[in-house]
Amino acid sequence: MKAEIINVGTEILLGSIDNTNSVYICKKLVEKGIETIFQTAVIDDIELVKLALKNAVERATLVIVTGGLGPTEDDLTKEALAQLFGTNLELDENTKQTIENYFSHNNKKMTANNYKQALKLKNSELIPNNNGTAPGLFIELNGNKIFLLPGPPNELIPMFEEHVLPKLKTDIFLATKSINTLEIGESELETILREIELHYPEIEIATYASYGAVEIKIIGKDNNLDDLNSKMSQVISIIDSKIHNHIYGFNYSSLEEMAVDKLKKSGQKISIAESVTGGIITSKITRIPGASEVLERGIVAYTIESKIDELGVSRNTIDSYGVVSEQVAFEMAKGLYEKTKSDYCIATTGFAGPTADKEKKVGENYICIYTKDNHFIFYNQFNGTREAIQHKIASLALIKLIVQLNNKLTLN
Amino acid sequence: MKAEIINVGTEILLGSIDNTNSVYICKKLVEKGIETIFQTAVIDDIELVKLALKNAVERATLVIVTGGLGPTEDDLTKEALAQLFGTNLELDENTKQTIENYFSHNNKKMTANNYKQALKLKNSELIPNNNGTAPGLFIELNGNKIFLLPGPPNELIPMFEEHVLPKLKTDIFLATKSINTLEIGESELETILREIELHYPEIEIATYASYGAVEIKIIGKDNNLDDLNSKMSQVISIIDSKIHNHIYGFNYSSLEEMAVDKLKKSGQKISIAESVTGGIITSKITRIPGASEVLERGIVAYTIESKIDELGVSRNTIDSYGVVSEQVAFEMAKGLYEKTKSDYCIATTGFAGPTADKEKKVGENYICIYTKDNHFIFYNQFNGTREAIQHKIASLALIKLIVQLNNKLTLN
Repeated sequence: MKAEIINVGTEILLGSIDNTNSVYICKKLVEKGIETIFQTAVIDDIELVKLALKNAVERATLVIVTGGLGPTEDDLTKEALAQLFGTNLELDENTKQTIENYFSHNNKKMTANNYKQALKLKNSELIPNNNGTAPGLFIELNGNKIFLLPGPPNELIPMFEEHVLPKLKTDIFLATKSINTLEIGESELETILREIELHYPEIEIATYASYGAVEIKIIGKDNNLDDLNSKMSQVISIIDSKIHNHIYGFNYSSLEEMAVDKLKKSGQKISIAESVTGGIITSKITRIPGASEVLERGIVAYTIESKIDELGVSRNTIDSYGVVSEQVAFEMAKGLYEKTKSDYCIATTGFAGPTADKEKKVGENYICIYTKDNHFIFYNQFNGTREAIQHKIASLALIKLIVQLNNKLTLN
Repeated sequence: MKAEIINVGTEILLGSIDNTNSVYICKKLVEKGIETIFQTAVIDDIELVKLALKNAVERATLVIVTGGLGPTEDDLTKEALAQLFGTNLELDENTKQTIENYFSHNNKKMTANNYKQALKLKNSELIPNNNGTAPGLFIELNGNKIFLLPGPPNELIPMFEEHVLPKLKTDIFLATKSINTLEIGESELETILREIELHYPEIEIATYASYGAVEIKIIGKDNNLDDLNSKMSQVISIIDSKIHNHIYGFNYSSLEEMAVDKLKKSGQKISIAESVTGGIITSKITRIPGASEVLERGIVAYTIESKIDELGVSRNTIDSYGVVSEQVAFEMAKGLYEKTKSDYCIATTGFAGPTADKEKKVGENYICIYTKDNHFIFYNQFNGTREAIQHKIASLALIKLIVQLNNKLTLN
């Protein structure tokens, strides 16, 4: 079964919102073994929506449409589908009642437009929406399964989980596995992986580099589950034999998830003192459930005063070496350790820019990782926007932490 | 001129990466007065890429294709375009030389595949890439302008700015303006705005709600610039007359940008003590250039010990009322004020979940804003994932800060 996703909404094509619905749906379909071959976003224009639907039903058997189900005059997904298939929209009495109840329950005024949301195509099935007034719709037409879902993710996601996924059955098995590598270049990996791929035509191996970490994504398809699993295992063990020292985990979706998991498993704690990264490392860590088991303290010491007051950096060091220096990074991490005694204390200092000051090298930064017995300082200079520089430094700090955690684990 | 964006790459349709290139290109085209009517993502399959290109040149005059220009065998955008238009690829000697130099300069081994990147279509123009080895390509064919650009954003963005934008000329003027509103519902706004829109058919007014803030986006098109500007001003002043008290700014792209700007303009400073939001508020603030002028200190007091040590919360208060309580939020903010004397001290405490503990109400949270003369405590309970709850609390804290800043500004 091949799928196409259509996202209806002018706001998407103005660049005003990220299309998170597509990312979510693609991931869920992959897990189900369904390949999405196209994703199309289209503005709120009934002729163009019809064109998108027409293309989609010609090339995919599963079509998932998001957006355009609301009460406003711009919402015309159902109308487009009805026109394309030459069928009518009819009022669904139950849905009409539900919408009326919703409005009276919430003391909101119902307008004539809201009745639009109670319209459905002949022979279609309404999908209940517990988080909004627009129900979804499911219809099978000429061998295509078509789902219409509302645009807001908090409405779409529960509807997709409860009502769309159970309706999708596939005859082909699909397996995916990610290998998380650090401190190896994508091009070096590429050479190794292409060679392996040659021997396994059913398996695709892709690499995704992000801020110094490369994820190897292995995707296998087969109509026999045992064959599939056996080939997947073979590929993974060949990769492992070639780049063992660069593999830091499997199926982690982010560096912070990897770091928190490794800290938890080893029963260790961290504290973080951030200057240039301004809280990004700490907020990445706290995004992960269970972060409270591993994070002792985060201090965003953005000003000189706060570096001195909170972390005990000496004013003399700052005057002699500057705020962006190896020495200040070291004293920040050491000060944090004195205060918290955490197993790993991480400090960052640098210039994220932009600045008119020619003396300051934008992108220059120091990371210090301080432990009871040791410390490591890393110097780098990164390019890019302010935000990109901050994220590169934060990611590198997490990478260096993970590498340290792995070394420690291997030694024990 | 109508545009279509095509994103080539299986990784997009696996949901492995966010399609940030499309968002970026759409925004830039809007600024140029060009309407994007379709965006299509397609997997690395030459027949499907050809199909996407064929559809695009039929319905749009400007086609921007991203991805598939790299050295691997999956990269086949140029090949697809050449096949579709029945033309050949030829080796560009200059580019071949540039790629060879790049490899020898970086001490990297060049593989045969890399020569693919020096191929170009007959009559096309190569677009230099200073951040990678894959040049872009520009070609005019049968009245279509077609640009091919590499997928990595750090390569694509500078190429787009320097080489694509200057080639795009339009005969229609487009103006956009955003109005940032707070503490007014989207449906209430919708009713007001639809009424206004009726009188201005050339102007579209859309609303985008995000975490309690609603952005009103006004888009006008006209072939006379004076008419356009005059209509835009009229619409803005009508909106202002109807919802004046809910307007907190114009053209701000985020709450943090609004907060930092208002703090800067009033010469005031903030400090932030975060428990449940784990550094998100602080990192949002430090994302904005010039944050160092307004942010004095950020403390992520995730554990009970850190609340006591860093912020002077009394253990007794925690024992009596629990960590997630009005009293703890107040003592966190007050402790931060004692330490920093910042004009605004913000504290958050709450449960982001997930938890197996039935006693804890996931999503429950308190925000305290403490100033020299006053303090405000806000209680809420939010739904959603851990990350959604954290972001809702962080956004609400910024909204409450901005509302306070505006009150203060009005009073002075």
